[in-house]
Amino acid sequence: MNSIRQIACMLLAVLLLVCLIVGELLWLNELLAERMPDDSDINDGFEAYEMRLDGVWEELSCFPVPESESNASATVSFENTWHAERTYGGTRSHEGIDIMADLDKSGYYPVLSMTDGTVEKVGWLEKGGWRIGIRSANGNYYYYAHLHSYGKEWQAGDRVYAGEILGYMGDSGYGEEGTTGQFPVHLHVGIYIPLGADQEMAINPYWMLRYLENRKLSFSF
Amino acid sequence: MNSIRQIACMLLAVLLLVCLIVGELLWLNELLAERMPDDSDINDGFEAYEMRLDGVWEELSCFPVPESESNASATVSFENTWHAERTYGGTRSHEGIDIMADLDKSGYYPVLSMTDGTVEKVGWLEKGGWRIGIRSANGNYYYYAHLHSYGKEWQAGDRVYAGEILGYMGDSGYGEEGTTGQFPVHLHVGIYIPLGADQEMAINPYWMLRYLENRKLSFSF
Repeated sequence: MNSIRQIACMLLAVLLLVCLIVGELLWLNELLAERMPDDSDINDGFEAYEMRLDGVWEELSCFPVPESESNASATVSFENTWHAERTYGGTRSHEGIDIMADLDKSGYYPVLSMTDGTVEKVGWLEKGGWRIGIRSANGNYYYYAHLHSYGKEWQAGDRVYAGEILGYMGDSGYGEEGTTGQFPVHLHVGIYIPLGADQEMAINPYWMLRYLENRKLSFSF
Repeated sequence: MNSIRQIACMLLAVLLLVCLIVGELLWLNELLAERMPDDSDINDGFEAYEMRLDGVWEELSCFPVPESESNASATVSFENTWHAERTYGGTRSHEGIDIMADLDKSGYYPVLSMTDGTVEKVGWLEKGGWRIGIRSANGNYYYYAHLHSYGKEWQAGDRVYAGEILGYMGDSGYGEEGTTGQFPVHLHVGIYIPLGADQEMAINPYWMLRYLENRKLSFSF
Protein backbone atom coordinates (compact mmCIF):
# COMPACT_ATOMS: atom_id res chain seq x y z
CA MET A 1 0.00 0.00 0.00
CA ASN A 2 2.80 2.38 0.96
CA SER A 3 4.57 2.03 -2.40
CA ILE A 4 1.29 2.40 -4.37
CA ARG A 5 0.61 5.63 -2.47
CA GLN A 6 4.11 6.86 -3.36
CA ILE A 7 3.62 6.07 -7.05
CA ALA A 8 0.26 7.87 -7.00
CA CYS A 9 1.92 10.93 -5.39
CA MET A 10 4.65 10.91 -8.02
CA LEU A 11 2.11 10.66 -10.86
CA LEU A 12 0.09 13.53 -9.39
CA ALA A 13 3.18 15.71 -9.05
CA VAL A 14 4.16 14.98 -12.67
CA LEU A 15 0.62 15.71 -13.92
CA LEU A 16 0.56 19.01 -12.03
CA LEU A 17 3.88 20.04 -13.54
CA VAL A 18 2.76 19.10 -17.04
CA CYS A 19 -0.38 21.20 -16.57
CA LEU A 20 1.74 24.11 -15.38
CA ILE A 21 4.07 23.85 -18.37
CA VAL A 22 1.25 23.61 -20.91
CA GLY A 23 -0.55 26.54 -19.29
CA GLU A 24 2.62 28.62 -19.31
CA LEU A 25 3.32 27.79 -22.94
CA LEU A 26 -0.22 28.65 -24.04
CA TRP A 27 -0.05 31.94 -22.20
CA LEU A 28 3.33 32.79 -23.73
CA ASN A 29 2.01 31.90 -27.14
CA GLU A 30 -0.88 34.29 -26.69
CA LEU A 31 1.48 36.98 -25.49
CA LEU A 32 3.65 36.48 -28.56
CA ALA A 33 0.71 36.58 -30.95
CA GLU A 34 -0.61 39.70 -29.28
CA ARG A 35 2.60 41.67 -29.19
CA MET A 36 4.42 40.60 -32.35
CA PRO A 37 3.74 43.20 -35.02
CA ASP A 38 2.65 41.57 -38.26
CA ASP A 39 2.93 43.16 -41.69
CA SER A 40 -0.34 45.02 -41.33
CA ASP A 41 0.88 46.71 -38.12
CA ILE A 42 4.01 47.86 -39.90
CA ASN A 43 1.96 49.16 -42.81
CA ASP A 44 -0.39 50.93 -40.38
CA GLY A 45 2.68 52.59 -38.89
CA PHE A 46 3.87 53.80 -42.29
CA GLU A 47 0.38 54.93 -43.20
CA ALA A 48 0.09 57.00 -40.02
CA TYR A 49 3.52 58.48 -40.74
CA GLU A 50 2.56 59.18 -44.34
CA MET A 51 -0.66 60.91 -43.28
CA ARG A 52 1.35 63.03 -40.86
CA LEU A 53 3.79 64.00 -43.61
CA ASP A 54 0.86 64.85 -45.85
CA GLY A 55 -0.43 67.14 -43.10
CA VAL A 56 2.91 68.98 -43.14
CA TRP A 57 2.92 69.38 -46.92
CA GLU A 58 -0.63 70.71 -46.89
CA GLU A 59 0.02 73.45 -44.38
CA LEU A 60 3.34 74.70 -45.79
CA SER A 61 2.67 77.92 -47.62
CA CYS A 62 5.83 79.96 -48.11
CA PHE A 63 9.61 79.75 -47.97
CA PRO A 64 10.93 80.96 -44.59
CA VAL A 65 13.15 83.64 -46.17
CA PRO A 66 11.64 86.14 -48.63
CA GLU A 67 13.19 87.29 -51.87
CA SER A 68 14.68 90.77 -51.69
CA GLU A 69 13.05 93.27 -54.03
CA SER A 70 15.88 95.74 -53.62
CA ASN A 71 19.09 93.73 -53.24
CA ALA A 72 19.80 91.09 -55.91
CA SER A 73 22.70 89.67 -53.91
CA ALA A 74 20.61 89.04 -50.78
CA THR A 75 20.10 85.39 -51.67
CA VAL A 76 20.18 82.24 -49.60
CA SER A 77 21.23 78.66 -50.30
CA PHE A 78 20.88 75.27 -48.65
CA GLU A 79 21.87 71.67 -49.08
CA ASN A 80 20.50 68.31 -47.98
CA THR A 81 22.55 68.01 -44.77
CA TRP A 82 19.88 65.89 -43.09
CA HIS A 83 21.53 63.78 -40.37
CA ALA A 84 24.98 65.18 -41.06
CA GLU A 85 27.08 65.08 -37.93
CA ARG A 86 27.22 68.01 -35.50
CA THR A 87 29.76 68.15 -32.72
CA TYR A 88 28.75 71.05 -30.45
CA GLY A 89 27.42 69.61 -27.18
CA GLY A 90 28.46 66.06 -27.98
CA THR A 91 28.29 64.22 -31.29
CA ARG A 92 24.71 64.21 -32.58
CA SER A 93 23.01 64.22 -35.93
CA HIS A 94 21.64 67.37 -37.50
CA GLU A 95 17.86 67.34 -37.18
CA GLY A 96 17.11 70.05 -39.69
CA ILE A 97 18.27 72.06 -42.66
CA ASP A 98 20.46 75.16 -42.55
CA ILE A 99 19.53 77.98 -44.88
CA MET A 100 22.75 79.95 -45.35
CA ALA A 101 22.78 83.72 -45.83
CA ASP A 102 24.84 84.47 -48.93
CA LEU A 103 25.37 87.92 -47.38
CA ASP A 104 26.87 87.14 -43.98
CA LYS A 105 24.99 89.96 -42.20
CA SER A 106 23.25 89.22 -38.93
CA GLY A 107 19.81 90.84 -38.55
CA TYR A 108 19.44 91.53 -42.27
CA TYR A 109 17.23 88.77 -43.74
CA PRO A 110 13.65 88.47 -42.44
CA VAL A 111 12.56 85.03 -41.25
CA LEU A 112 8.93 84.22 -42.08
CA SER A 113 6.61 81.62 -40.68
CA MET A 114 6.11 78.86 -43.28
CA THR A 115 2.68 78.07 -41.80
CA ASP A 116 -0.19 79.37 -39.75
CA GLY A 117 0.00 78.36 -36.10
CA THR A 118 0.58 79.37 -32.53
CA VAL A 119 3.80 80.34 -30.76
CA GLU A 120 4.71 77.47 -28.43
CA LYS A 121 8.27 78.27 -27.38
CA VAL A 122 10.23 81.49 -27.62
CA GLY A 123 13.54 82.67 -26.12
CA TRP A 124 17.08 81.43 -25.64
CA LEU A 125 18.33 77.86 -26.04
CA GLU A 126 21.98 76.90 -25.62
CA LYS A 127 22.13 75.15 -28.99
CA GLY A 128 19.42 77.07 -30.84
CA GLY A 129 20.21 80.58 -29.64
CA TRP A 130 17.25 82.93 -30.04
CA ARG A 131 14.63 80.57 -31.32
CA ILE A 132 10.91 80.37 -31.91
CA GLY A 133 8.74 77.26 -32.21
CA ILE A 134 5.35 77.34 -33.92
CA ARG A 135 2.70 74.65 -33.41
CA SER A 136 0.40 74.28 -36.43
CA ALA A 137 -3.28 73.32 -36.54
CA ASN A 138 -2.29 69.81 -37.71
CA GLY A 139 -0.18 69.45 -34.55
CA ASN A 140 3.23 69.76 -36.19
CA TYR A 141 6.09 71.78 -34.70
CA TYR A 142 8.15 74.24 -36.76
CA TYR A 143 11.41 75.29 -35.18
CA TYR A 144 13.40 78.36 -36.32
CA ALA A 145 16.79 78.86 -34.65
CA HIS A 146 19.86 81.13 -34.41
CA LEU A 147 17.82 84.34 -34.88
CA HIS A 148 19.41 87.78 -34.47
CA SER A 149 16.20 89.21 -33.04
CA TYR A 150 12.43 88.81 -33.07
CA GLY A 151 9.86 90.47 -35.36
CA LYS A 152 7.86 91.41 -32.29
CA GLU A 153 7.71 90.49 -28.61
CA TRP A 154 6.27 87.05 -29.14
CA GLN A 155 4.57 85.31 -26.24
CA ALA A 156 3.65 81.63 -26.02
CA GLY A 157 0.10 81.34 -27.32
CA ASP A 158 0.32 84.19 -29.86
CA ARG A 159 -1.41 83.49 -33.18
CA VAL A 160 0.97 83.46 -36.18
CA TYR A 161 0.09 83.62 -39.86
CA ALA A 162 2.07 82.12 -42.73
CA GLY A 163 4.35 84.79 -44.17
CA GLU A 164 4.47 86.81 -40.92
CA ILE A 165 7.94 88.02 -39.79
CA LEU A 166 9.03 85.84 -36.87
CA GLY A 167 12.40 87.51 -36.60
CA TYR A 168 15.67 88.17 -38.42
CA MET A 169 18.35 85.71 -39.43
CA GLY A 170 21.37 85.69 -37.18
CA ASP A 171 24.22 83.67 -35.70
CA SER A 172 23.09 83.26 -32.08
CA GLY A 173 23.62 80.11 -30.02
CA TYR A 174 26.25 77.55 -29.04
CA GLY A 175 26.77 79.09 -25.61
CA GLU A 176 25.15 81.05 -22.82
CA GLU A 177 22.42 83.62 -23.48
CA GLY A 178 23.53 86.21 -26.00
CA THR A 179 26.36 84.20 -27.57
CA THR A 180 26.82 85.05 -31.25
CA GLY A 181 29.38 84.58 -33.99
CA GLN A 182 30.15 80.90 -33.38
CA PHE A 183 29.21 80.12 -37.02
CA PRO A 184 28.12 81.96 -40.19
CA VAL A 185 24.71 83.65 -40.30
CA HIS A 186 22.05 81.08 -41.13
CA LEU A 187 18.56 79.89 -40.30
CA HIS A 188 18.14 76.39 -38.89
CA VAL A 189 14.73 74.98 -39.83
CA GLY A 190 13.40 71.93 -38.00
CA ILE A 191 10.08 70.17 -38.53
CA TYR A 192 8.72 67.70 -35.97
CA ILE A 193 5.64 65.51 -36.27
CA PRO A 194 3.80 63.94 -33.31
CA LEU A 195 4.40 60.22 -33.06
CA GLY A 196 2.53 58.00 -30.64
CA ALA A 197 1.42 59.26 -27.26
CA ASP A 198 4.18 61.55 -26.14
CA GLN A 199 6.88 61.57 -28.77
CA GLU A 200 7.92 63.83 -31.57
CA MET A 201 9.91 62.83 -34.61
CA ALA A 202 12.13 65.09 -36.67
CA ILE A 203 11.52 64.87 -40.39
CA ASN A 204 13.75 66.05 -43.20
CA PRO A 205 12.62 69.52 -44.33
CA TYR A 206 14.91 69.53 -47.38
CA TRP A 207 12.45 68.61 -50.15
CA MET A 208 9.77 70.71 -48.53
CA LEU A 209 12.09 73.70 -48.70
CA ARG A 210 12.90 72.86 -52.33
CA TYR A 211 9.16 72.87 -53.00
CA LEU A 212 8.71 76.18 -51.14
CA GLU A 213 11.55 77.79 -53.12
CA ASN A 214 8.97 78.37 -55.83
CA ARG A 215 6.68 79.92 -53.24
CA LYS A 216 8.86 82.77 -52.01
CA LEU A 217 7.35 86.05 -50.88
CA SER A 218 8.95 89.32 -52.00
CA PHE A 219 9.99 91.87 -49.38
CA SER A 220 11.98 95.04 -49.61
CA PHE A 221 15.18 94.61 -47.55
CA MET B 1 15.43 0.45 0.21
CA ASN B 2 12.61 0.04 -2.29
CA SER B 3 10.75 3.13 -1.08
CA ILE B 4 13.97 5.22 -0.89
CA ARG B 5 14.67 4.30 -4.51
CA GLN B 6 11.14 5.39 -5.45
CA ILE B 7 11.53 8.72 -3.68
CA ALA B 8 14.86 9.26 -5.42
CA CYS B 9 13.21 8.49 -8.78
CA MET B 10 10.42 10.97 -8.07
CA LEU B 11 12.87 13.68 -7.05
CA LEU B 12 14.91 13.09 -10.20
CA ALA B 13 11.81 13.32 -12.37
CA VAL B 14 10.75 16.58 -10.70
CA LEU B 15 14.25 18.06 -11.06
CA LEU B 16 14.34 17.10 -14.72
CA LEU B 17 10.98 18.76 -15.32
CA VAL B 18 12.03 21.92 -13.47
CA CYS B 19 15.16 22.08 -15.59
CA LEU B 20 13.06 21.68 -18.72
CA ILE B 21 10.67 24.44 -17.68
CA VAL B 22 13.45 26.86 -16.75
CA GLY B 23 15.26 26.10 -19.99
CA GLU B 24 12.11 26.64 -22.01
CA LEU B 25 11.36 29.92 -20.26
CA LEU B 26 14.88 31.23 -20.77
CA TRP B 27 14.71 30.31 -24.43
CA LEU B 28 11.33 31.99 -24.85
CA ASN B 29 12.61 35.07 -23.08
CA GLU B 30 15.50 35.28 -25.51
CA LEU B 31 13.14 34.80 -28.42
CA LEU B 32 10.93 37.61 -27.15
CA ALA B 33 13.84 39.95 -26.62
CA GLU B 34 15.15 39.16 -30.07
CA ARG B 35 11.92 39.56 -31.97
CA MET B 36 10.08 42.28 -30.09
CA PRO B 37 10.71 45.54 -31.87
CA ASP B 38 11.74 48.25 -29.46
CA ASP B 39 11.59 51.96 -30.22
CA SER B 40 14.92 51.92 -31.99
CA ASP B 41 13.70 49.20 -34.38
CA ILE B 42 10.66 51.29 -35.20
CA ASN B 43 12.84 54.33 -35.77
CA ASP B 44 15.16 52.23 -37.96
CA GLY B 45 12.08 51.30 -39.99
CA PHE B 46 11.11 54.94 -40.44
CA GLU B 47 14.68 55.87 -41.21
CA ALA B 48 14.91 53.22 -43.93
CA TYR B 49 11.60 54.45 -45.34
CA GLU B 50 12.76 58.04 -45.16
CA MET B 51 16.01 57.21 -46.96
CA ARG B 52 14.02 55.45 -49.67
CA LEU B 53 11.76 58.48 -50.08
CA ASP B 54 14.83 60.68 -50.28
CA GLY B 55 16.11 58.44 -53.08
CA VAL B 56 12.89 59.09 -55.00
CA TRP B 57 13.08 62.86 -54.54
CA GLU B 58 16.69 62.92 -55.67
CA GLU B 59 16.08 61.13 -58.94
CA LEU B 60 12.92 62.98 -59.99
CA SER B 61 13.86 65.41 -62.70
CA CYS B 62 10.84 66.52 -64.72
CA PHE B 63 7.05 66.58 -64.70
CA PRO B 64 5.62 63.64 -66.70
CA VAL B 65 3.64 65.91 -69.05
CA PRO B 66 5.42 68.76 -70.86
CA GLU B 67 4.09 72.25 -71.33
CA SER B 68 2.78 72.95 -74.82
CA GLU B 69 4.65 75.69 -76.66
CA SER B 70 1.95 75.99 -79.28
CA ASN B 71 -1.38 75.39 -77.53
CA ALA B 72 -2.10 77.44 -74.42
CA SER B 73 -5.17 75.36 -73.59
CA ALA B 74 -3.29 72.04 -73.59
CA THR B 75 -2.93 72.08 -69.81
CA VAL B 76 -3.28 69.36 -67.20
CA SER B 77 -4.51 69.32 -63.61
CA PHE B 78 -4.42 66.93 -60.68
CA GLU B 79 -5.59 66.60 -57.12
CA ASN B 80 -4.47 64.70 -54.04
CA THR B 81 -6.67 61.63 -54.57
CA TRP B 82 -4.23 59.35 -52.74
CA HIS B 83 -6.12 56.35 -51.35
CA ALA B 84 -9.44 57.56 -52.73
CA GLU B 85 -11.70 54.62 -53.40
CA ARG B 86 -11.80 52.93 -56.81
CA THR B 87 -14.48 50.42 -57.69
CA TYR B 88 -13.41 48.79 -60.97
CA GLY B 89 -12.34 45.20 -60.25
CA GLY B 90 -13.59 45.27 -56.65
CA THR B 91 -13.31 48.07 -54.12
CA ARG B 92 -9.68 49.09 -53.67
CA SER B 93 -7.79 52.24 -52.86
CA HIS B 94 -6.17 54.39 -55.52
CA GLU B 95 -2.41 53.82 -55.42
CA GLY B 96 -1.36 56.82 -57.43
CA ILE B 97 -2.28 60.22 -58.78
CA ASP B 98 -4.31 60.94 -61.92
CA ILE B 99 -3.10 63.78 -64.11
CA MET B 100 -6.19 64.87 -66.06
CA ALA B 101 -5.98 66.19 -69.62
CA ASP B 102 -7.85 69.50 -69.73
CA LEU B 103 -8.25 68.80 -73.48
CA ASP B 104 -9.95 65.40 -73.52
CA LYS B 105 -8.02 64.17 -76.61
CA SER B 106 -6.48 60.71 -76.54
CA GLY B 107 -2.98 60.50 -78.04
CA TYR B 108 -2.39 64.24 -77.85
CA TYR B 109 -0.26 64.94 -74.75
CA PRO B 110 3.23 63.38 -74.62
CA VAL B 111 4.06 61.38 -71.48
CA LEU B 112 7.67 61.81 -70.34
CA SER B 113 9.78 59.71 -68.03
CA MET B 114 10.25 61.60 -64.75
CA THR B 115 13.54 59.79 -64.16
CA ASP B 116 16.38 57.89 -65.76
CA GLY B 117 15.96 54.14 -65.60
CA THR B 118 15.26 50.91 -67.41
CA VAL B 119 12.01 49.60 -68.89
CA GLU B 120 10.83 46.75 -66.65
CA LYS B 121 7.26 46.12 -67.80
CA VAL B 122 5.50 47.19 -70.97
CA GLY B 123 2.19 46.19 -72.60
CA TRP B 124 -1.44 45.67 -71.64
CA LEU B 125 -2.87 45.33 -68.13
CA GLU B 126 -6.59 44.93 -67.46
CA LYS B 127 -6.68 47.85 -65.01
CA GLY B 128 -3.77 49.89 -66.35
CA GLY B 129 -4.41 49.55 -70.09
CA TRP B 130 -1.31 50.29 -72.14
CA ARG B 131 1.23 50.86 -69.44
CA ILE B 132 4.97 51.15 -68.96
CA GLY B 133 7.00 50.62 -65.78
CA ILE B 134 10.46 52.10 -65.33
CA ARG B 135 12.94 50.86 -62.71
CA SER B 136 15.36 53.57 -61.58
CA ALA B 137 18.97 53.25 -60.46
CA ASN B 138 17.86 53.67 -56.82
CA GLY B 139 15.58 50.64 -57.26
CA ASN B 140 12.28 52.51 -57.34
CA TYR B 141 9.46 51.69 -59.77
CA TYR B 142 7.66 54.36 -61.78
CA TYR B 143 4.37 53.24 -63.30
CA TYR B 144 2.61 55.16 -66.11
CA ALA B 145 -0.83 53.84 -67.12
CA HIS B 146 -3.78 54.30 -69.52
CA LEU B 147 -1.55 55.35 -72.44
CA HIS B 148 -2.97 55.83 -75.95
CA SER B 149 0.24 54.54 -77.53
CA TYR B 150 3.98 54.25 -76.96
CA GLY B 151 6.75 56.68 -77.97
CA LYS B 152 8.66 53.78 -79.49
CA GLU B 153 8.57 49.98 -79.43
CA TRP B 154 9.84 49.67 -75.88
CA GLN B 155 11.28 46.35 -74.76
CA ALA B 156 12.00 45.27 -71.19
CA GLY B 157 15.61 46.24 -70.46
CA ASP B 158 15.66 49.35 -72.68
CA ARG B 159 17.50 52.33 -71.19
CA VAL B 160 15.28 55.39 -70.58
CA TYR B 161 16.35 58.96 -69.87
CA ALA B 162 14.43 61.54 -67.85
CA GLY B 163 12.38 63.67 -70.25
CA GLU B 164 12.21 60.96 -72.94
CA ILE B 165 8.76 60.34 -74.50
CA LEU B 166 7.41 57.08 -73.10
CA GLY B 167 4.12 57.40 -74.93
CA TYR B 168 0.99 59.51 -75.29
CA MET B 169 -1.76 60.13 -72.79
CA GLY B 170 -4.91 58.10 -73.41
CA ASP B 171 -7.92 56.41 -71.90
CA SER B 172 -7.01 52.72 -72.26
CA GLY B 173 -7.82 50.07 -69.67
CA TYR B 174 -10.63 48.68 -67.49
CA GLY B 175 -11.24 45.72 -69.79
CA GLU B 176 -9.65 43.32 -72.26
CA GLU B 177 -6.74 44.37 -74.49
CA GLY B 178 -7.59 47.46 -76.50
CA THR B 179 -10.46 48.72 -74.31
CA THR B 180 -10.68 52.53 -74.33
CA GLY B 181 -13.13 55.25 -73.38
CA GLN B 182 -14.13 53.90 -69.97
CA PHE B 183 -13.04 57.20 -68.34
CA PRO B 184 -11.70 60.63 -69.38
CA VAL B 185 -8.19 60.90 -70.86
CA HIS B 186 -5.64 60.97 -68.06
CA LEU B 187 -2.27 59.67 -66.94
CA HIS B 188 -2.09 57.51 -63.84
CA VAL B 189 1.28 57.91 -62.11
CA GLY B 190 2.33 55.36 -59.49
CA ILE B 191 5.58 55.28 -57.52
CA TYR B 192 6.68 52.17 -55.63
CA ILE B 193 9.64 51.80 -53.29
CA PRO B 194 11.25 48.46 -52.36
CA LEU B 195 10.45 47.44 -48.79
CA GLY B 196 12.08 44.49 -47.12
CA ALA B 197 13.09 41.42 -49.05
CA ASP B 198 10.40 40.98 -51.62
CA GLN B 199 7.84 43.70 -51.18
CA GLU B 200 7.05 46.99 -52.81
CA MET B 201 5.15 49.84 -51.23
CA ALA B 202 3.16 52.47 -53.08
CA ILE B 203 3.94 56.01 -51.99
CA ASN B 204 1.92 59.15 -52.62
CA PRO B 205 3.30 60.95 -55.69
CA TYR B 206 1.16 64.06 -55.11
CA TRP B 207 3.69 66.37 -53.47
CA MET B 208 6.41 65.12 -55.78
CA LEU B 209 4.27 66.10 -58.75
CA ARG B 210 3.60 69.49 -57.14
CA TYR B 211 7.36 69.91 -56.84
CA LEU B 212 7.89 68.82 -60.46
CA GLU B 213 5.24 71.27 -61.72
CA ASN B 214 8.00 73.88 -61.54
CA ARG B 215 10.23 71.56 -63.55
CA LYS B 216 8.16 71.13 -66.70
CA LEU B 217 9.80 70.67 -70.08
CA SER B 218 8.43 72.58 -73.08
CA PHE B 219 7.41 70.65 -76.18
CA SER B 220 5.60 71.70 -79.33
CA PHE B 221 2.29 69.80 -79.49
